[in-house]
Amino acid sequence: MRTELLAELAQQLRVDSVRVADLAGSGHPTSSMSAADIAAVLLSNHLTYDFDRPDHPGNDRLIFSKGHASPLLYSMYLAAGAIDETEFRTYRREGSRLEGHPTPRLPWVDVATGSLGQGLPVGVGMALAGQRLGKAPYRVWVLCGDSEMAEGSIWEAAEHAGYQHLDSLTMIIDVNRLGQRGPTRHGHDLGAYARRLHAFGWHTIEIDGHDIEAIESALEEARSTMGEPTAIIAATKKGRGVAAVEDREGMHGKPLPDAASAIEELGGRRSMRVEVRKPTSALADARPEVGHLNLPRFAVGDEIATRDAYGQALTALGTARGDIVALDGEVGDSTRTEFFSKEHPERYFELYIAEQQLVAAAVGMQACGQIPYASTFAAFLTRAHDFLRMATVSRASISVVGSHAGVSIGQDGPSQMGLEDLAMFRSLHGSTVLQPCDANQTTRLVAAMAELEGVSYLRTLRGKTLVIYGPDEQFPVGGSKVLRHSIDDRMTLVGSGITVHECLVAADLLAAEGITVRVIDMYSVKPADEVTLQAAAADTGCLITVEDHHPQGGLGDAVAEVFSDGRPAPRLVRLGVRDIPGSATPEEQLRAAGIDADSIAAAVKLLTGTAMVR
Amino acid sequence: MRTELLAELAQQLRVDSVRVADLAGSGHPTSSMSAADIAAVLLSNHLTYDFDRPDHPGNDRLIFSKGHASPLLYSMYLAAGAIDETEFRTYRREGSRLEGHPTPRLPWVDVATGSLGQGLPVGVGMALAGQRLGKAPYRVWVLCGDSEMAEGSIWEAAEHAGYQHLDSLTMIIDVNRLGQRGPTRHGHDLGAYARRLHAFGWHTIEIDGHDIEAIESALEEARSTMGEPTAIIAATKKGRGVAAVEDREGMHGKPLPDAASAIEELGGRRSMRVEVRKPTSALADARPEVGHLNLPRFAVGDEIATRDAYGQALTALGTARGDIVALDGEVGDSTRTEFFSKEHPERYFELYIAEQQLVAAAVGMQACGQIPYASTFAAFLTRAHDFLRMATVSRASISVVGSHAGVSIGQDGPSQMGLEDLAMFRSLHGSTVLQPCDANQTTRLVAAMAELEGVSYLRTLRGKTLVIYGPDEQFPVGGSKVLRHSIDDRMTLVGSGITVHECLVAADLLAAEGITVRVIDMYSVKPADEVTLQAAAADTGCLITVEDHHPQGGLGDAVAEVFSDGRPAPRLVRLGVRDIPGSATPEEQLRAAGIDADSIAAAVKLLTGTAMVR
Repeated sequence: MRTELLAELAQQLRVDSVRVADLAGSGHPTSSMSAADIAAVLLSNHLTYDFDRPDHPGNDRLIFSKGHASPLLYSMYLAAGAIDETEFRTYRREGSRLEGHPTPRLPWVDVATGSLGQGLPVGVGMALAGQRLGKAPYRVWVLCGDSEMAEGSIWEAAEHAGYQHLDSLTMIIDVNRLGQRGPTRHGHDLGAYARRLHAFGWHTIEIDGHDIEAIESALEEARSTMGEPTAIIAATKKGRGVAAVEDREGMHGKPLPDAASAIEELGGRRSMRVEVRKPTSALADARPEVGHLNLPRFAVGDEIATRDAYGQALTALGTARGDIVALDGEVGDSTRTEFFSKEHPERYFELYIAEQQLVAAAVGMQACGQIPYASTFAAFLTRAHDFLRMATVSRASISVVGSHAGVSIGQDGPSQMGLEDLAMFRSLHGSTVLQPCDANQTTRLVAAMAELEGVSYLRTLRGKTLVIYGPDEQFPVGGSKVLRHSIDDRMTLVGSGITVHECLVAADLLAAEGITVRVIDMYSVKPADEVTLQAAAADTGCLITVEDHHPQGGLGDAVAEVFSDGRPAPRLVRLGVRDIPGSATPEEQLRAAGIDADSIAAAVKLLTGTAMVR
Repeated sequence: MRTELLAELAQQLRVDSVRVADLAGSGHPTSSMSAADIAAVLLSNHLTYDFDRPDHPGNDRLIFSKGHASPLLYSMYLAAGAIDETEFRTYRREGSRLEGHPTPRLPWVDVATGSLGQGLPVGVGMALAGQRLGKAPYRVWVLCGDSEMAEGSIWEAAEHAGYQHLDSLTMIIDVNRLGQRGPTRHGHDLGAYARRLHAFGWHTIEIDGHDIEAIESALEEARSTMGEPTAIIAATKKGRGVAAVEDREGMHGKPLPDAASAIEELGGRRSMRVEVRKPTSALADARPEVGHLNLPRFAVGDEIATRDAYGQALTALGTARGDIVALDGEVGDSTRTEFFSKEHPERYFELYIAEQQLVAAAVGMQACGQIPYASTFAAFLTRAHDFLRMATVSRASISVVGSHAGVSIGQDGPSQMGLEDLAMFRSLHGSTVLQPCDANQTTRLVAAMAELEGVSYLRTLRGKTLVIYGPDEQFPVGGSKVLRHSIDDRMTLVGSGITVHECLVAADLLAAEGITVRVIDMYSVKPADEVTLQAAAADTGCLITVEDHHPQGGLGDAVAEVFSDGRPAPRLVRLGVRDIPGSATPEEQLRAAGIDADSIAAAVKLLTGTAMVR
């Protein structure tokens, strides 16, 4: 499209942004207007996209990292004919696909944005998938705001993109100088961004973001730059084109004061239609074949760390399925994804110590058809909490595996212990939370995760645990195992992971004293096995949960949730880690936290009155 | 100290690191040995510190951001005479202050480290306090590993330190080339780090980290550099001095294979003692006077957003106490900390959109005697989860305030909604979690937070809510308010924040139909008011919790936890946000989530059987 027409199109995008926010009574028209020229040129002359086939593997990826500029994105969809005026006018209304910030309820939106600093790291994941996994050639375009450049996650992504030479990735920074509450740190100093990005290995181009020809040439340059990602750093004005708001403070995130006159000032409504170039590759990516899965098998009575079983199972899964990818945060020797890296190096992604980028890359890759397993220490996954939260809004399906759970890691101390991870994952919408206690259980759950929707979490242990299940045992998600059971059970012990073994020993100790207790292995923390827990409640009247985790948000809360359905509840007691641990051996740690076999047995005796009798 | 002696001291620090890890049977001697020369020179010639008075305001701050190098830190303490050989030998044993990673159980450790990438941002907070608040002059020394330079939080800190001209801050990067599982991204390419940091406004010095004279001169240069923070980028060798491990892969995080011969190779044990220079300023910082607190007062029946009340209360608190500081993530117009910024600009810290740095700065400032309130959207606090977790290990006392809680924010959609924040804060050890429903309650809780130990969280609302409490009402932490109460109560509604008002309307709707229910305002989510909840359970037999949060980890779990003490429990039902919301008005959102008055009333009728009878 020629310059004059592009300028017209940009004005149309501005007008549409203004009027849709006005109709909605809220939204971010000024943040849309600053990037309208860029959007017009990108849509008309550079984006490759088949809006009728959003799943086409040759489609470019377009991410509005500055998700609040959704009026602009939806105005582009309107111009491309992807949505009609009737739908356009539903912006921000209940039930509309056109939400305040873009989400994959729209088929052309791969990932949700709105929490700043996430679009670029997710785009890195998409570009990695495209360049490293032999996909159809596509480009990844990420529109960033200048405010979000302060987020560390942007620099994790900048580092990774530069290091990996992701030349299919283009970041366009809409430097409109004004953040939410006033001027940004660097204002219109484009060089501040260019110097930083250049140091991180990027090709940088500084332009006037309202100069159509400059935009055209910069986008062309980005497409032809090899070996480096490109950053187009564009000086723009927020609210561009309407004097009442242009480049003015206090005009963030609200409709224009007088939309009618603003639209007039912008030249009135237009109805240009853009024919977006479609991908030339005719074929869809062949879905990798799923071969026979040969999971490792462990002998009952052996001692194996669940993290080892995870590494082996993941490797086997990778052999069976070509769409499995593994990602790690430079701790693959601890999480045991190194097993996978040796067998399937081409599908192993080292993200270094950058947990936000780790999870973001997984989210980006699943949007490109991969089945990602992202691993690091359970404790350090808290670093990526906001990315996990947004992954649920993105309707992303990712498997996340946290090792070194709980105090049972021993001497390294609390900084390395996952003691809040169950709470974090349990609170995520639609999540699955799994915690195996032995090697064979681990392998089954690892395989099951590949089929799960949403964010799935598996928690593994540093130390070895006894293999108590045979290799053919089944462990459905949402199930549990009753490991001790008699008609005389006076109480039920509910363990998960390491504490299953402590509960079993406690049960044996108690049995020797004539006190029989039921023991449940609640390997599926969410969803919980309500039937088994309800039965245990009916039979024994009292459940004691034992968890290597703080008492809030984990197993204790999960069991209590089962009994929050309005029916009469059993007596509940929870044992968990109630202090900040120090350094000590694993055994000392479990004892100090009161979650070892002796402490469990003592609790049972106290509750049954046996302790007082003796 | 002269060069030859410094070289001897460095060998002593190496020997001690090797032997203490050997005694413990675990730890990171090789990561200590790489930085031993730096540590020797810093301790002897540049650190200002009175080990007898760790609370001396003139003391420098020394942070081992690479906390796994704790053997080196403790060897420095041993050389300085702060600890003796007997204690030194307790490293990593149960009960010892010498944990695997440093924590403030040692009086000379201001903040815990061990989760990489946190020391520098915390150091930025300390330097900010020192330079901006007219404190005794002290320097902040942060020893970083090269692996942790991949963490985005490092670059949030680098950006902030450069922008704020924090010349009292020196980062020393121990570039030993090897991370946990193998080579780092940049290996020994010192220029890669220098270029990046220089672009972020740092003065950079590249040295051989085993050249004593080069170290001496670099530290001297750092101390005399004005207007910029300094990064000393030191090429080192992991395991330096012992051929069996020096610069070799696979030697991370474990004792040396043959400690005795290694110690011999290092020249054997030494017992040099370092006289560390003490601060010259004789006086302790005067503790700011605490004046009379004039909290804002709101009239019952008015409508005020709790975020507005927070902003006003914080401003009043800042007027009464000079040690109050406010920090924000570039959303002060939303969180309402802008009120504080106008009244107390010298104690207002704009951290821009960098939530990790936001929380880290608060942690750093509290270590320097301030009482920080850190604010952003509740949703975006998830970005700082790992920093909040480590704040608890640091025994830090900080107040954190999250606005825009829950679906009640309306049209902006799920990316902006805090729906997991209660779960996150509740799972933190020793945390306090508060959620006010009206303006007068907010002001009281904001004032109370200044006195609390640990991480305290207050959750505020975007929209206006009715003032239902008088300005003289008291709201003790751990308390609750019973707002409807009769001897005929058939059920109890437990709300918090916005849902208190929905519960009250529901109670009125039900009362009109002859169904009386108790209503409890559980403004203190953690600790919970067990007495009042137990009484409601005894009186009514059934509690319905209503929360604008996902059903896991929040109010429902908090109430269930109260009934997990082994005593008979009431029937529990929880209403919460069970889907991913879209865009809609606040009223539509509450209805869609089933937490509005009508939904609550319907639930009560269903549970009491009234619905079926009618």
